[in-house]
Amino acid sequence: MTDQICVAIDGMGGDNAPHMIVGGVNRAAHTHQNVKFLIFGDEAKLGPLLEEFPSIQPRCEIRHTADAVSNNDKPTTALRTAKNSSMRLAIDAVANGEASAIVSAGNTGALMAMATIVLKTLPGISRPAIATSFPTQNGDCVMLDLGANIECDANNLVQFAVMGEVYARNELKLEQPSIGILNVGVEGLKGNDSVKEAAGILQKSSLPIKFFGFVEGDDIGKGTVDVIVTDGFTGNIALKTVEGTAKMFAHFLRNALTSSLMSKMGALIAKPAIEKLRSHFDPRRYNGAMLLGLNGICVKSHGGTDHIGFAHAVEVGVNLVKRDFNKHIKEDLDHLMTSEIEIGSQSAAE
Amino acid sequence: MTDQICVAIDGMGGDNAPHMIVGGVNRAAHTHQNVKFLIFGDEAKLGPLLEEFPSIQPRCEIRHTADAVSNNDKPTTALRTAKNSSMRLAIDAVANGEASAIVSAGNTGALMAMATIVLKTLPGISRPAIATSFPTQNGDCVMLDLGANIECDANNLVQFAVMGEVYARNELKLEQPSIGILNVGVEGLKGNDSVKEAAGILQKSSLPIKFFGFVEGDDIGKGTVDVIVTDGFTGNIALKTVEGTAKMFAHFLRNALTSSLMSKMGALIAKPAIEKLRSHFDPRRYNGAMLLGLNGICVKSHGGTDHIGFAHAVEVGVNLVKRDFNKHIKEDLDHLMTSEIEIGSQSAAE
Repeated sequence: MTDQICVAIDGMGGDNAPHMIVGGVNRAAHTHQNVKFLIFGDEAKLGPLLEEFPSIQPRCEIRHTADAVSNNDKPTTALRTAKNSSMRLAIDAVANGEASAIVSAGNTGALMAMATIVLKTLPGISRPAIATSFPTQNGDCVMLDLGANIECDANNLVQFAVMGEVYARNELKLEQPSIGILNVGVEGLKGNDSVKEAAGILQKSSLPIKFFGFVEGDDIGKGTVDVIVTDGFTGNIALKTVEGTAKMFAHFLRNALTSSLMSKMGALIAKPAIEKLRSHFDPRRYNGAMLLGLNGICVKSHGGTDHIGFAHAVEVGVNLVKRDFNKHIKEDLDHLMTSEIEIGSQSAAE
Repeated sequence: MTDQICVAIDGMGGDNAPHMIVGGVNRAAHTHQNVKFLIFGDEAKLGPLLEEFPSIQPRCEIRHTADAVSNNDKPTTALRTAKNSSMRLAIDAVANGEASAIVSAGNTGALMAMATIVLKTLPGISRPAIATSFPTQNGDCVMLDLGANIECDANNLVQFAVMGEVYARNELKLEQPSIGILNVGVEGLKGNDSVKEAAGILQKSSLPIKFFGFVEGDDIGKGTVDVIVTDGFTGNIALKTVEGTAKMFAHFLRNALTSSLMSKMGALIAKPAIEKLRSHFDPRRYNGAMLLGLNGICVKSHGGTDHIGFAHAVEVGVNLVKRDFNKHIKEDLDHLMTSEIEIGSQSAAE
C-alpha cells in the first residue's frame, strides 16, 4: 500500500495529555513513515510540544480547538455540549473522510457515545463493543466487551461473539478462532439469563464459528479460547484484574529477588530472561482497544498510559487501516448474516 | 478453649473425593489435636482410606450414606432429592448441634441452598454470601460474594459490606477494615444501578464502617481496600481471574528461568527466594471460603483441590469455631443494626 494514511488524534484526552500524546505520535510516526496525523486540541499547548520533534512536523497538522471532554463528563452531556471538543472533531474527521482512524485516550463513555452517533454501527450490530488482545499461556486472546455496555442481553453477546471472531481471525491471524462466553461455571445451568440464552443461540446457530461454550475466570490466563465474550461490566473488571494481578506478581517477584545477597546475585545472572518476561507483560505493549462494530476505525488508549503506550495505540489504528479491517468485518458480517437475517434475534425468538 | 470441637465433613464432595478428603482430614487433625471429625459418605470407600491413618482413627467417625450430590445437580433438585446425601447430612449435623462446622468441596449451589434452608440466615441478612481472603500487594483482603448470588440488588451488596467488615475485623485482625465496591470506574456515575445505589446507601449511612467508595479490577492486586464487595457473578470471575493470572505468570517465570544456561544458574542461586514466592501464592494456602450470614459455620473448599488444600479448608472451619466467629458476627450485626433497623432497606427507600 503506497497511499498515505491519515490518522485523527484526540490531542487532549488522557491523564498525561497533551505531552504523552505528542510523544506517542512522534514514536508511531517513526515506525510508520507513510502516515499523516491530524492532531485536535489546544494549539498553544500542542504547538510547542510538536516543535520538539521537527522531523515529524511536516506530517502533523494541529487543528485548534479550546474545548475538551473531561473524564467526569457524562456521555450524554458530552454528546450535547462537546461538539467542538478535540475528541468530537477527531471523530468527525473520520466521518467526513479526512482521516481513516481516530485514536483517543479520553473519557471512554463519551468516546463510545460520540463515535456511535457520528460513525454509526455496522449493519446487524446494535451496540459496538470495546475489544483488545492480551497475552495468555497459550498465545494472545481477544476479550470483549471491556466496558462499553454495562448491561448486555443475549443478542448483544451473540453479536460480540461474531465481531470477536472476525477480529481474532484478522488481527491474530487465526484460521478458526474458538469462542467462549465468560461465566461462573462451565455447566449449562450456571450463570445469568443473558449468558445462558446467548450460549443456547450459539450452540443451535448455523453460523460458521467455533463455539467452545462457557469459560471461567481462570481460563483467561490459560488461554482456553481465542475470543472471550462477556458484558462490559464483567469484562472491564476481568481485564483490570489481569493487569492488577500481573503487577502484584511482578512486585512480589522484585521483592523476592532483592531479599538477600544470594537472590540478588541469582537475579543478576538471570536478568536477560527476567527482562524478557517483564517486557512480555508490559501493559503498554497491549495498549489500544478497538471500538468494534462501527463504520470507521476508532481506537481507545488507556487514559493513564505514557507516550510509549500511546504510540502503541496509534499503531493499532494504523495497522487496522493498513489491513483494511473495516472492509473485512463488513464482508464477514455480511457473509455470516446470510445464515441468520439478524444475528441472534431469529434464534432468540424461538 | 479446652472443649473438643466437632467438625462435620462431606466425605464425597470434590473432584478427588474421597481420597483427598481423608488425606486432608488427616493433615488437619495433626495440626489441631482437639478436633473430632464426623465424615459422611460411602463407608466402603471411606473406611479403607481411613485405615491408612491409624493415628487419627479414634477421632474420626464415618457416618455411612450411599447418596451424594453431583456437580451437575441443580440446587433445587439437590434440595428436594438429596436429603440423605453426604452433604446434607453433614449440614444437618451442625443444625442439630452434633458438629460446630461443616466443610464440603462439593457442588457450591447445592451447598448454598441446603445450608441456607437448614441453618437459616442471621437476623437482618436476606442472602448469605461466599467470602474468602487472599493475598494482595498490601496484605490479605476479603472478597465477597464469590458466586452464591448471581444477581444482587443494592441491599444485598450493603449487607455483604457489613458481613465482610465483620469477617475482616475478626479473621484478618484489622481494627477498622476499609470497604470498597467493585466497579468499572471510581466516579459515582459509573456502573450498574445496584452498585450505584449501594454506594449511595453506604455513603449516607450512619453505620460505623469505613466505606472507601468504588474500586476497580486492578485495585484487587494493589490491596487498595481490605474488603471488596461485589455480586456473585463478578466476584467469582474476578477471583478465578486472579488465580488464572497468577498461574500464567508462574508459568512464564518458569519458562524464563529455564530458557538458557545462564537463567538456570541464576534461578538455582535465587531458588530459596523463588520458592518462598511460589508458596506465598499457592492457592491451597487460601483454600476454604466461608458461607457468611448463616446460623452456623459452613466452609466451601475448592472442588479441584488436593489433600493439602482440603486440610486448609478444614482449618478455616476449625479456626472460625475456635474464635467463636458466629457469636461475634451476631453481636456485630446486632450492634450495627441498632443504627438502621434493617441494613440498607431504610436508606434505600429514601
